[in-house]
Amino acid sequence: MNNILCIYSRFWLRHLVFMGAGAMGEIKHLVVVKFKEGVVVEEIVKGMEKLVTEVDLVKSFEWGQDSEGHEMLTQGFTHSFAMTFDKKEDYAAFQSHPSHVEYSATFSAAIEKIVVLCFPCVRVKPTG
Amino acid sequence: MNNILCIYSRFWLRHLVFMGAGAMGEIKHLVVVKFKEGVVVEEIVKGMEKLVTEVDLVKSFEWGQDSEGHEMLTQGFTHSFAMTFDKKEDYAAFQSHPSHVEYSATFSAAIEKIVVLCFPCVRVKPTG
Repeated sequence: MNNILCIYSRFWLRHLVFMGAGAMGEIKHLVVVKFKEGVVVEEIVKGMEKLVTEVDLVKSFEWGQDSEGHEMLTQGFTHSFAMTFDKKEDYAAFQSHPSHVEYSATFSAAIEKIVVLCFPCVRVKPTG
Repeated sequence: MNNILCIYSRFWLRHLVFMGAGAMGEIKHLVVVKFKEGVVVEEIVKGMEKLVTEVDLVKSFEWGQDSEGHEMLTQGFTHSFAMTFDKKEDYAAFQSHPSHVEYSATFSAAIEKIVVLCFPCVRVKPTG
């Protein structure tokens, strides 16, 4: 019984340390892409900026274009887009939001290859 | 002459709007990976957390493990690590920092595939 209690408290301790390391429950939606040749990337980016500005569910948004250009490291990918949501439910609601659904069609048509990760964000530095 | 002045001011206006959109000059170093089978990911992450905590050049660090698991979207990648630097010079100094060089050997040995992007970070939301 003591062992079970010990394991149980260890679990919660780890859980609390984990949650303390990042903003509680924050979800990050990360998209890394290579656009098709001939795509006007500026317009795609403008569309995304408009989307995240209009939809309150998106807590934060940042993006960038690789400036180093080491093909061996980038694997041909050029752009990164990262959205943060307060909680999983907000991310789910965003996915089915009409503005997102509409924009996704434009975005999908413009990409040659893509990697999408979605994860609870662990912030180590700065803490809190 | 008027035209040149006009183009020149437009350039600076765009430049100012751009710089205003993100933190000035901030550089993001993004690493997306799939680890080799059998690798104890927890140890690799601990090593990275130790590294970024010790090296002051790293302004912020966050990471996460994909929780959705859509193979078609993740392309087999599982983890994302993102470091932020105040300026390009800090990133360059970090790259050649002895602690980073040492850790890189361990990290490289653990990965099956990797995408690395490095870019001036444009923060759209929240602004400023």
